[in-house]
Amino acid sequence: MTRLVNDPARFAEEALAGFVSAHPDDVQAVHGGVVRASATPPGQVATVLGGGTGHYPAFAGWVGPGFAHGAACGNIFSSPSASQICSVARAADHGGGVVFGFGNYAGDVLHFGQAAEQLRAEGIDVRIVAVTDDTASGPSGETGLRRGIAGDLPVLKILGAAAEAGHGLDRVHGAGVKANGATRSLGLAFDGCTLPGDTRPLFTVPHGTMGVGLGIHGEPGIEQRGLVSADEVADLLVDGVLAERAQAAEAVGGSDQVAVVLNGLGATKYEELYVVHRRVAERLAAEGLTAVAPVVDEQVTSLGMAGLSLTLTFLDEELERLWTAPAVTPAFRRGHLPARPRRTDDLATARRAPDVVPGDEGSRALGTRIAAALRTVHETVAAHERRLGEIDAVAGDGDHGIGMRRGASAAVAAADGAVTAGAGARTVLAHAGAAWSEHAGGTSGALWGAALTAFGSELGDSGGASARRIAAGVRAAVGSVVRLGGARPGDKTLVDAAAPFADRLDAALDEFPPAEAWAEAVVTARDAAEATASIPARIGRARAHGDNSVGTPDAGAVSLSLVLTALTPHLEQEDR
Amino acid sequence: MTRLVNDPARFAEEALAGFVSAHPDDVQAVHGGVVRASATPPGQVATVLGGGTGHYPAFAGWVGPGFAHGAACGNIFSSPSASQICSVARAADHGGGVVFGFGNYAGDVLHFGQAAEQLRAEGIDVRIVAVTDDTASGPSGETGLRRGIAGDLPVLKILGAAAEAGHGLDRVHGAGVKANGATRSLGLAFDGCTLPGDTRPLFTVPHGTMGVGLGIHGEPGIEQRGLVSADEVADLLVDGVLAERAQAAEAVGGSDQVAVVLNGLGATKYEELYVVHRRVAERLAAEGLTAVAPVVDEQVTSLGMAGLSLTLTFLDEELERLWTAPAVTPAFRRGHLPARPRRTDDLATARRAPDVVPGDEGSRALGTRIAAALRTVHETVAAHERRLGEIDAVAGDGDHGIGMRRGASAAVAAADGAVTAGAGARTVLAHAGAAWSEHAGGTSGALWGAALTAFGSELGDSGGASARRIAAGVRAAVGSVVRLGGARPGDKTLVDAAAPFADRLDAALDEFPPAEAWAEAVVTARDAAEATASIPARIGRARAHGDNSVGTPDAGAVSLSLVLTALTPHLEQEDR
Repeated sequence: MTRLVNDPARFAEEALAGFVSAHPDDVQAVHGGVVRASATPPGQVATVLGGGTGHYPAFAGWVGPGFAHGAACGNIFSSPSASQICSVARAADHGGGVVFGFGNYAGDVLHFGQAAEQLRAEGIDVRIVAVTDDTASGPSGETGLRRGIAGDLPVLKILGAAAEAGHGLDRVHGAGVKANGATRSLGLAFDGCTLPGDTRPLFTVPHGTMGVGLGIHGEPGIEQRGLVSADEVADLLVDGVLAERAQAAEAVGGSDQVAVVLNGLGATKYEELYVVHRRVAERLAAEGLTAVAPVVDEQVTSLGMAGLSLTLTFLDEELERLWTAPAVTPAFRRGHLPARPRRTDDLATARRAPDVVPGDEGSRALGTRIAAALRTVHETVAAHERRLGEIDAVAGDGDHGIGMRRGASAAVAAADGAVTAGAGARTVLAHAGAAWSEHAGGTSGALWGAALTAFGSELGDSGGASARRIAAGVRAAVGSVVRLGGARPGDKTLVDAAAPFADRLDAALDEFPPAEAWAEAVVTARDAAEATASIPARIGRARAHGDNSVGTPDAGAVSLSLVLTALTPHLEQEDR
Repeated sequence: MTRLVNDPARFAEEALAGFVSAHPDDVQAVHGGVVRASATPPGQVATVLGGGTGHYPAFAGWVGPGFAHGAACGNIFSSPSASQICSVARAADHGGGVVFGFGNYAGDVLHFGQAAEQLRAEGIDVRIVAVTDDTASGPSGETGLRRGIAGDLPVLKILGAAAEAGHGLDRVHGAGVKANGATRSLGLAFDGCTLPGDTRPLFTVPHGTMGVGLGIHGEPGIEQRGLVSADEVADLLVDGVLAERAQAAEAVGGSDQVAVVLNGLGATKYEELYVVHRRVAERLAAEGLTAVAPVVDEQVTSLGMAGLSLTLTFLDEELERLWTAPAVTPAFRRGHLPARPRRTDDLATARRAPDVVPGDEGSRALGTRIAAALRTVHETVAAHERRLGEIDAVAGDGDHGIGMRRGASAAVAAADGAVTAGAGARTVLAHAGAAWSEHAGGTSGALWGAALTAFGSELGDSGGASARRIAAGVRAAVGSVVRLGGARPGDKTLVDAAAPFADRLDAALDEFPPAEAWAEAVVTARDAAEATASIPARIGRARAHGDNSVGTPDAGAVSLSLVLTALTPHLEQEDR
C-alpha cells in the first residue's frame, strides 16, 4: 500500500516536484508536467506523452533525448487536463509539430483530443497515437477499443526515436501507429494497490488466485485462476500474446524479430521477473522469434500492485532501428547520444496561451458579442447551479452545477481579457474554452472547453457573424464533443440535446429569421433534454443494471438546454 | 510476497539464468555468478561484488564497464560460497588483482575472506571492502560492526570507477575504504518480505507502525514507531544520517558535497520515494549540503519488502569524480563509455581451480599421505554423522553431521585427483579445501575449507613433512579459522578445541616424538570440546537467554576432536 504521503490531494504534485529535484539535468518543470532540460534542434517533431500519476516511470521518467520531449502528469490514475497537456506541448514544441502518445483510456483520449484541437487552433500541428496493446481488454477485431498497458514503452520509445531521427510529423506519427499495430500485451495481477490516503485497496484479487488480463487500474480481466508456477505463468503470457502473432506480425509486413518487455507492476520483484523471463526467452526461441533488446524491469507500474505483463512488438527494419536507438532519460537509458546544451529559454511563460492575434474590425465586434453571451451563460448556470447539482447527484457525483459555474466564470474572465487585447472571435473563444476546461474539471468541463474552441475555429479571426456561420460553429462544436467524448445519441449525455439542436437550427434557418430559428431549435433541445429521463445511465461502456437515474434527465443535457434558451436574445441582431 | 516460483530451491539459479538471458550484451554466466560480456583492458584491477539473491540490482545488475567486473550470486539472502566467489574472481581477474566488495554480514565476510585466501594461494592479489553504512546496526564508535545496506551503491560504484580509472590495487582499494568511511545510511521498514516457497513473511511489522533501522533481511532495528507523514519520514531519515555528519565528512577531510541515494526496498514505490525526496532535497539544501547526482530508485532491494533508506556519501574531489564517472550496467547507467569489443576467451574454464603445479618428490609423497589422512577424516565423520547431527540440533539446525560427511567426501575425491595429477601438498590441500567448502555448505564447511587451504599454504609444494612443519600448518589452519570466522575462545565454536590443540601440540613437540605429542594434544582438544558444554550458545553477537544448549558441547568442537583423534596413527612415521 501507499504509505509515504503528506496531503493525499497533493500527492501527484509533490511526487512530480521530487522527481524534478532528483533529475535537474534531465527535466524541467512546466505547468502540468515536465519537458527536457536539454535543448532540442529547431524543427524537430516533439513527442508529448502523458497519463495519470502512479505508473512511474511512465511517463515523466521517459523524458529525454531519444524518447519524449515532454510529459503531462495527471492526478493519481487520472488523465492530465487539456490545459496541462497544452502547457507541456507548447513548451515542448520546437516548430516541427507535436505527436501525443498515451494509453487508450477515455479520460486521456478526451483531454489529449481537446488539447490537440486547442493547439491546432493556435497553429501547432498535432497528431495522436493512443496505445492499445492490452489483448485482454477487447476483441481482436476491435483493437481500437483496447487499453494501453506496458506496450506504452515500445510504442512510445519508437515514436520518440522517430522524432529524434529528424523525420517529419507524418513519418513520426506513422512509426508510432505502425508500432502500436504490431504490439500485443497480456498481463496478470495477484493483488491490488492502495491509493494515497486510502486505507483499503482500490480492488483486491482473492488470495491464492490471479486475475488474468486485469487492467493496471483494476479494470476487469478475462478470468480468475488459481496460482501456478513461474513457468506456467510464462507459458500463459507467451501463449496469450502469440495468439495474435499473425495479426501483429502482419502490421509490419511479417517479421520474426520482436521487442520484448516483461514488466513488473510494482510489488512483483526483479528476481521473480527474471525467473519468468528464463522461460519466456526459451519459449520465444522455440517459436522461431528473435528477441531484440529485451527489457525486464518496472517500466509501467501501478503503485504497489502485484503482477506483471508480457509485451511483444513485431519489428520491421525501421522499427528495429528505432527500438534499439539511443535514449537517455531518467528511467530508460540505452546507448549514447552526444551531450546537448541546456535549454535556456524562459519556460515560465509556457503555461500561457499564445499571444492574441488581433482580429479585424468585424471579428473584434463579434468577439465582444461573444464575451457578452458568455456572461449570459455564466449567469444562467450560476442561477441553476444547485438544481443542476441535484440532478447530477442521482447518477453522478453531483458536481455538475459547481463545475459549470466555475467553467463559465473562468471563460468570461478569459474572454474579457482577450477582447481587451483586441482579439477576434476565434481567439476569444479559444481563450474562453481553455479557461473553462481548466477550471471546470471533469469530463463536461473538457467537452465545453472543446466546444467553445471548435466554435471559434469555425468563426475565425476575421469577418463578422451570420446566422449560417453561427450554425456552422454549432455543428463544429457538437462535432468536437462527439469526437472527443465518444458519446452517441441515446447515451444519456449532453449530445442527446446538442445533436438535435444543431440539426433543427440548420433546418429552421431555411424558414425563419435567426432568433426565431434559434428559438425553434431551443424547443427541440429542451424536449430532447427532458427525454433523457427515460434512458438509464451508463457505466463505462455498459448500461447500469437497475439504474436509479431513470426518471431524471441528464444534467449535462439540461444545463445545455438552459444555456441555449438564455442565449436566444443574443441572436436578435443577427443577419441571416 | 514472492509468487513467481518454480522450485524454491532453484529460485536463485533460475533468476540468474533469466537475468543473463535478458542482458546477453552486458554479462556472461560463469560458475557462481556473472562477469562482464565486454573485454577489460589487461592489468586493470577487477572488482568482484556479491551477496545473496533477493537484492537486485545488487549485485549482478551492477556488472559492466565503470562498475563491477563480476558478481558472485548466493542463494536467497545467503552469501555466495567461497567456491562461487573464487570462480567469478578467476574469470574477472585481468592480471591487475581483485578487490572484493560486499555488505558486512557474517556469511559474506567468511566466504569472501576464504575466497581471498584461496586466490592469494593461487597467486592473485586480493583486497576487501566490506560496506558498513547502516547507522542503525551498531554504535558510531564501532562502525566496523555495522551492516551494509543501500550504501553498497555509492561505495561499490566508487570502487568500480576507481578500477575503471586504471589505478593500482592499493589506490582502488583505498578509494573504496574511503568512500565507506564517508557513507552513512538509515532505513525504515513498513512490512516484511516472503521468501520463495514460503507462505508466511520472513518477519512482519505491526500494522500502522514502522521499524526504524530494521535491516534488509529483517534484522532488529532501533525502535518501532507509528506511521507519520512523508515529510516526517524524510526528516527522520535526514536527521538520523546527519547525526554522524561530522564523522562522515571527516573521512574525506571535510566536505559539503554528498552523493544521495534514496532507495526503495521493493514495495515502496517510485512516486512515494519522490514525495519523500522533495523534502530530503529541501532539507539537505537547508543544511548547506550540495547533492551530487542523486539516485532515487530501487537499487538495493529486499524482495517485496516495504520500506526505504536514505544514504549520504560525503565526497572529496576524488570521490566526486568517481561517483559521477560513467557506468554502463544492466541496472545502473550514467554517462557514456566507448563501446568495447566482446570478451572472447573461454569462460567455461573459469570454474576450474588453477592447473596443478607439480610438486617435488618429497611433497608428492606428502600429498599422498594427506589424501590418505583425508580418507580417515571422511570415515570418522561418516561414522559419527548421526551423533554430530543430534548434538548440533540442540542449538543449531542439525546439519553438522551431514555437512561434515559431504565436505570430507568431496575433499577426498579432490585430493585423490590432485595426487594423480602429480600435485604437491599445498595443491592437494587447496583442491581438498575448495571441494570441502563448496560441498559441505554452511559456516563450518567454509571454515574447514579455509583451514585445509591454510594448512597447505604452510607446507608448500616442495619438501616432505616434519613435525614442526605440521605444527606450523595447524597454527596456520587455526589462524585462518579465527580470522575468517571471527570467533574467539569461549564463543562455543570449534575454536574452543582448535586453539588449545595447536598450543599443546607446539609445547608437546618439545618433549615427545610426533605421534605422542599429537596424542597429548588430542587429549587437550577432547577435554576442551567437552568443556564447551558449559557455555551457552550465541545468537549473532549476543548470548542466547535461557539457552537450552548448556549441557551439550559444541558440535563443531566435538567433530574436530573426533577427527584429530582418528588422525593420530598418521603421525607415526613422522620425523621431529
